[in-house]
Amino acid sequence: MDTKIPYKIYLAEDEIPTQWYNVRADMKNKPEPLLNPATGEPMKAEELEQIFCKELVKQEMDDDQRWYDIPEEILKFYKMYRPSPLVHATFLEEALGTPAHIYYKYEGNNTSGSHKLNSAIAQAYYAKEQGLKGVCTETGAGQWGTALSMACQYFGLDCQVYMVKCSYVQKPFRREVMRTYGAKVTPSPSMTTEVGRRILAEFPDTNGSLGCAISEAVEASRSQEGYRYELGSVLNQVLLHQTIIGLETQTACKKYGIKPDILIGCAGGGSNLGGFAAPFIGEMLRGEADYKVIAVEPASCPSLTRGKFAYDYCDTGKICPLAKMYTLGSQYIPSASHAGGLRYHGMTPVLSQLYHDGLFEARSVKQTDVFAAAVQFARVEGTLPAPESSHAIRVAIDEALKCKETGEEKTIIFNLTGNGYFDLYSYERFNTGNMSDYIPTDEELEKSFALLPEVK
Amino acid sequence: MDTKIPYKIYLAEDEIPTQWYNVRADMKNKPEPLLNPATGEPMKAEELEQIFCKELVKQEMDDDQRWYDIPEEILKFYKMYRPSPLVHATFLEEALGTPAHIYYKYEGNNTSGSHKLNSAIAQAYYAKEQGLKGVCTETGAGQWGTALSMACQYFGLDCQVYMVKCSYVQKPFRREVMRTYGAKVTPSPSMTTEVGRRILAEFPDTNGSLGCAISEAVEASRSQEGYRYELGSVLNQVLLHQTIIGLETQTACKKYGIKPDILIGCAGGGSNLGGFAAPFIGEMLRGEADYKVIAVEPASCPSLTRGKFAYDYCDTGKICPLAKMYTLGSQYIPSASHAGGLRYHGMTPVLSQLYHDGLFEARSVKQTDVFAAAVQFARVEGTLPAPESSHAIRVAIDEALKCKETGEEKTIIFNLTGNGYFDLYSYERFNTGNMSDYIPTDEELEKSFALLPEVK
Repeated sequence: MDTKIPYKIYLAEDEIPTQWYNVRADMKNKPEPLLNPATGEPMKAEELEQIFCKELVKQEMDDDQRWYDIPEEILKFYKMYRPSPLVHATFLEEALGTPAHIYYKYEGNNTSGSHKLNSAIAQAYYAKEQGLKGVCTETGAGQWGTALSMACQYFGLDCQVYMVKCSYVQKPFRREVMRTYGAKVTPSPSMTTEVGRRILAEFPDTNGSLGCAISEAVEASRSQEGYRYELGSVLNQVLLHQTIIGLETQTACKKYGIKPDILIGCAGGGSNLGGFAAPFIGEMLRGEADYKVIAVEPASCPSLTRGKFAYDYCDTGKICPLAKMYTLGSQYIPSASHAGGLRYHGMTPVLSQLYHDGLFEARSVKQTDVFAAAVQFARVEGTLPAPESSHAIRVAIDEALKCKETGEEKTIIFNLTGNGYFDLYSYERFNTGNMSDYIPTDEELEKSFALLPEVK
Repeated sequence: MDTKIPYKIYLAEDEIPTQWYNVRADMKNKPEPLLNPATGEPMKAEELEQIFCKELVKQEMDDDQRWYDIPEEILKFYKMYRPSPLVHATFLEEALGTPAHIYYKYEGNNTSGSHKLNSAIAQAYYAKEQGLKGVCTETGAGQWGTALSMACQYFGLDCQVYMVKCSYVQKPFRREVMRTYGAKVTPSPSMTTEVGRRILAEFPDTNGSLGCAISEAVEASRSQEGYRYELGSVLNQVLLHQTIIGLETQTACKKYGIKPDILIGCAGGGSNLGGFAAPFIGEMLRGEADYKVIAVEPASCPSLTRGKFAYDYCDTGKICPLAKMYTLGSQYIPSASHAGGLRYHGMTPVLSQLYHDGLFEARSVKQTDVFAAAVQFARVEGTLPAPESSHAIRVAIDEALKCKETGEEKTIIFNLTGNGYFDLYSYERFNTGNMSDYIPTDEELEKSFALLPEVK
């Protein structure tokens, strides 16, 4: 055990974990299965294989195998941008005057700008292994689309991205990164799919939505020979791949004798929190340790703190399977927010079940408070954080300030999922005092809950 | 000596060099002194101290002291983003099928996006030490302004940035990063200075220029009590601070037994090449080693390959001291290019003298060839490079392909100075086939040389 902790902990390359961890293997209460929206019956592997790659379906449905060997080719790619650093935020500690020890795992040091690449490369790999020609996906803010473009370029796969039209227009830089990596980027809704044409006929001026882009990507993948659909969050397979984050964090902690008390991650669909926290929650499930794990969500889209634990559609278009999860209702339209990556009505079934079983807590925060934390963090720690990630920063600072009051020397680790280089329009809104907050009323949510599908 | 070379070499924190290297101490032919433009006499320290901080003037004029201890507070800040990785570009080697070993030192992993932070934090530190209230500077593409904003925020100094108007409009993101770090950003020319008002009266529709922004920043610094001017390139002091790049590279090479044959850097004002190559050139000057060092400049602004070695103004406005350097003439207006950081008419006097004495060679490359290399690199190595840095990539690839022909296993190291996240407009021009090349004619250059000042 090294005793002197550097500011940035970089593990050696051969310390990168070589297996992913499947938390479902340790869960007593497994997440409920996906249901076929037409029949209400659990989705069968053969059905899912029409949408996703075969091996990914296996991972999706496997509640038992605890460890998955990471294929060599994926490990080789991981070395291009991993291990990611675990940073000891001494500058922040000093600025806050807190006795708490604050660390953050930084996943933003790659061109996709976030942790999304961890699953993108895995999904592209399995598509390649299956002999596919290409994949289709959707992207909102653009990180997932960028990550999948990079991964597909690496394996020589065609990559077709349906990008929510308003993002396509407002974030031309993200679009251009994808094109630089060889992806075809189509603003959604588009005339290239039936569902797109239908929506455009009905709403010619629509700016698009993630739900619509998902529907187009799924349709596009099914109408082309040798294509499958891939998704960057919510799914079990995604959480599995993302556990590389938490496992690396554990390895670094062990190496330097860091004993975390509090683990914090932002939560949209759940991909980063699930990947970061799952290995720690696994220890809790096995009775080996106890941590305070906190999910942080936007007050404008509070699926855990104010949602219902129920079966719901994963997409607005109601063509994807139903999942049992904390949800605001698939027809709930989150207000425009500067953390596009957290604007999802539901929460991945695994985290939903764990939350239901009391394994972690959740907090919702207002975006102006989030940006105040983001700017404070940027100024003292140097790194400009993504708005999504800054939700975790907000609560990390709040917890550190509590320690200042109580004098407790708690160790806090949060996941800094991405950088904010493409979010400067949002920073401008904040810097110029033009950012507002939105919190849905109970009536609004009740209206949305009333539209939840009836199951069984 | 470690024998297994990882993909990314991260030195340990305590391996970060604690001294800067002053190459002038090893030069037999020292660079010529700066001249007072009014008198034609060498600038005196007292005169320079009206413009720059005292300690920086000492560093500027000192041709003898080989090593400078890096102050503790600067070392502390360096640990926030250094050591920067030396990456073994195995993916690129594989894609090229070359027997050459290619490495790059990556300076883009910080919020300023480039190596500029290495000198910004030093300059801010000395301003703070001198008890100043703040500093003024100019910025073109924005990296230097961002770096200085970050550094001033860290030391609690006011930071006033004059940003070339066309950049201010075209690069709102860069502007916003600076504001996030607390800087005042003014589009130049502005009504806040005499020179700005004069220029606006004469050319109301001007988009500004670096020369004009420099003049405004200098005037602003001189008209405010407790302010000085700071500059991100060309000066001896900047090269001194930037040697942290080359020294870290040497440490990494030594640790892993890497013996470079070819060292490559892009060259605008010379700050990165000077910092990266100087420690290696120092070995050559002392007769300890021999390297092939290559400066790469844009064909549109070829100061080394087609310029004159003569005294010239450092700025278009002719208010700064004269420097003996390779220059295209201070009145030469480089064509609009996508590598704004290399659009400077001259070359730092130290590199100019070393080039004149045959210590390194220079090549000029066309921007479409540069972007072809940038996209190729991004796709195989993951990192999206800045257009400036991609000049070095172009020549590194060319040299590696030569090795493929000859079968030579040369070791090539280039400096990847920054990321291209804010250059996606330029990538779009390239991706859509809308990028052109410009090479000045001999007549144009002759016209510009005719305006060089007569000295002595």
